[in-house]
Amino acid sequence: MKKVFESYGFEPLETPALEYEDILMGKYGEEGDKLLFKILDSGDYLKDVPTEIWADPAAAKMLPFIAEKGLRYDLTVPLARTVVMNRHLLPFPFKRYQIQPVWRADRPQRGRYREFYQCDADVLGSDSLMYEAELIIIYLEVFKRLQIPVKVQYNHRAILEGMSVKMGREDLFLPMTAVLDKLDKVGEEAVIHELVELGFDTKQVAEMLNALRDKTLASFEFNEKGRLGVNSLRTILDYIQSSISDLSDLVFEPGLARGLSYYTGTIFEVVPTSVKMGSLGGGGRYDNLTGVFGVEGISGVGLSFGADRIYDVMEELGLFPSEINNPVKLLLLVLDEASHRFAFQLANRLRGEGIKTDVYPEPGKLKKQFKYAEDIKAEYIAVIGEAERDKSEFSIKDQATGQQTNCDIESLIQRLKG
Amino acid sequence: MKKVFESYGFEPLETPALEYEDILMGKYGEEGDKLLFKILDSGDYLKDVPTEIWADPAAAKMLPFIAEKGLRYDLTVPLARTVVMNRHLLPFPFKRYQIQPVWRADRPQRGRYREFYQCDADVLGSDSLMYEAELIIIYLEVFKRLQIPVKVQYNHRAILEGMSVKMGREDLFLPMTAVLDKLDKVGEEAVIHELVELGFDTKQVAEMLNALRDKTLASFEFNEKGRLGVNSLRTILDYIQSSISDLSDLVFEPGLARGLSYYTGTIFEVVPTSVKMGSLGGGGRYDNLTGVFGVEGISGVGLSFGADRIYDVMEELGLFPSEINNPVKLLLLVLDEASHRFAFQLANRLRGEGIKTDVYPEPGKLKKQFKYAEDIKAEYIAVIGEAERDKSEFSIKDQATGQQTNCDIESLIQRLKG
Repeated sequence: MKKVFESYGFEPLETPALEYEDILMGKYGEEGDKLLFKILDSGDYLKDVPTEIWADPAAAKMLPFIAEKGLRYDLTVPLARTVVMNRHLLPFPFKRYQIQPVWRADRPQRGRYREFYQCDADVLGSDSLMYEAELIIIYLEVFKRLQIPVKVQYNHRAILEGMSVKMGREDLFLPMTAVLDKLDKVGEEAVIHELVELGFDTKQVAEMLNALRDKTLASFEFNEKGRLGVNSLRTILDYIQSSISDLSDLVFEPGLARGLSYYTGTIFEVVPTSVKMGSLGGGGRYDNLTGVFGVEGISGVGLSFGADRIYDVMEELGLFPSEINNPVKLLLLVLDEASHRFAFQLANRLRGEGIKTDVYPEPGKLKKQFKYAEDIKAEYIAVIGEAERDKSEFSIKDQATGQQTNCDIESLIQRLKG
Repeated sequence: MKKVFESYGFEPLETPALEYEDILMGKYGEEGDKLLFKILDSGDYLKDVPTEIWADPAAAKMLPFIAEKGLRYDLTVPLARTVVMNRHLLPFPFKRYQIQPVWRADRPQRGRYREFYQCDADVLGSDSLMYEAELIIIYLEVFKRLQIPVKVQYNHRAILEGMSVKMGREDLFLPMTAVLDKLDKVGEEAVIHELVELGFDTKQVAEMLNALRDKTLASFEFNEKGRLGVNSLRTILDYIQSSISDLSDLVFEPGLARGLSYYTGTIFEVVPTSVKMGSLGGGGRYDNLTGVFGVEGISGVGLSFGADRIYDVMEELGLFPSEINNPVKLLLLVLDEASHRFAFQLANRLRGEGIKTDVYPEPGKLKKQFKYAEDIKAEYIAVIGEAERDKSEFSIKDQATGQQTNCDIESLIQRLKG
């Protein structure tokens, strides 16, 4: 991720784990406020609690007086705060990526943790659709490199708005998207039922469901809003097609709604196709991220990777390379005290060549040393005794194949380097 | 640091930011307990507060009922907990390094922050003095690579114990070390005065101060304790000398005491020699790190780097390479819409070659685009217009020298790669 982000000119940024409560509260909805980890003030944290609260102490009422700080809940609000605070120093468009843990006081379960890493890339201060194209290509590129089969779904808020207009009930736009978002889970029948229940016309709902099934951009050019969304997506696709030939993993999903109160333009989401797991990332354009901190008119677009879910998926698919279990390339086993000093010296020479080398800490019984080599999953071993010391010739054993090779120092370095 | 740690076979480890209070409390002294950031329990955090506390609410008494978790204060206690919990799965000696932030509710000032990174390497489960040698070499190697002039001071607890025995007051060992530790700050006169005040004999204190000034190992072989310490240090030096020829930065400092309640053998500390700043790291051997969690007899030795102070020193010495300010190798400026598409395609080709490339988000006035190139400190720029698009020939400008070079795509890649 870092490599791909950086190849697009995104700069790394880190922000503090602790933010003031008034920065965090009210930004993630009522549920989010509850899931914020709050940090108790230092020292006598009770000293600012007013008398009237002591008369009838309640957790929620006491909170603002005993905890002024909280733990970062996502990377987007800290980004907005940082950009507002440093807006006179930053170049715009400002491209930054951030890979840091966030914390949520949730009940832990598979794919949902109290501490987990988010990996975000955002561009602030430009409404160029080129950046939507960049971010979608980054999704495709990262998952290709990780070898995780995914589909990247995209949609545009204006298309969803157009749908509510087309069905004659623009006023029902937000509840409509909440119902559409469940299409995959509950099926068409249930969605039709719920939309009619909301107040939409049965026939119009049926027509819309046809378009949703069809999934072609042309089906949504039915009004001004729809055309606006479709045109934006066509421009983005145009950019992408100039650089990527195989677009089979990129899917227009007109039902995709995710967090619409937040996004104002294109939205996208990544789902794995070979493992049962929620989304591995999502993002979109937001026109007024910094507005909540008093600075209006900075348009932005961003994406996020959920590192812990990606980890779980990679583990399930067996995608981790085996060498991450080999912190030691060569372990030197030693027969006597003089050989131990010799091995220490040899190890430091090899380390200087960039070869991960270790020495068993004391000379003695080989059985124990062989077991240690297995325990730490050393890739190669060599026993150092008087003969090796005298001739500076070694017999290295490949622990995976059992094959032994004789070599002097130079050929040892050549063999193990790189 | 990572590269050096890994060349010695240290495995990376990360632990959670949050630990239970009963893991953290009582491990860092009374002052440390106060500096722990405490996390308020989720939901109705007041529900477990017993009636008798409501009668006379006090911060310290209420604390255990409203905050069961706290933020990591250092990396050593989480290491001990992790090793105890996983002791049947880990290979011993267990070599791990850990680079993560820790939090302290302190008043922030230069070199002292509320959130800061520690970089620790520890070996657990062996008392081989080879590991002391490894860690000292790691200090020398890392600061050499960072180009920060330092001296690495070392001492042994037994030498300090021997000094108190030699002066006839073994019972005053700990207060004696606290006084000696101030030698650099307050000077010899004050130290002599304080030691005599403590109860030491004036003549014996004067003799000891001579030895402290002398700083040769041989001066401390005056009794059994002293010889024990000196012999350990000689063995360690023997290992180090086999691999390092220039030992001028490595200094025996018999007055060095740092956190003795904790360390049981060798102790070491790194101080910068060209900048006024406290220690950049320290470490030593502790014989019973996991004892506090009920597992006795695991000897360990470790070191720590203070990343934020090292950052401050590097900034003061101007040691950061200029290219970390160049997230973009090449910025493409664009004259018209068709050139913009062309530039986007070209950028993606260059990114695929590992060249950090960016495109100005929209075609138009060059003045604004040139300014952006300066703002983001792009290393090279190229203007893309009709001519460049047609011939696929470009003129790239080195922003530092102003030099312009004409090239086709292949020579552009050759020039900017690597």
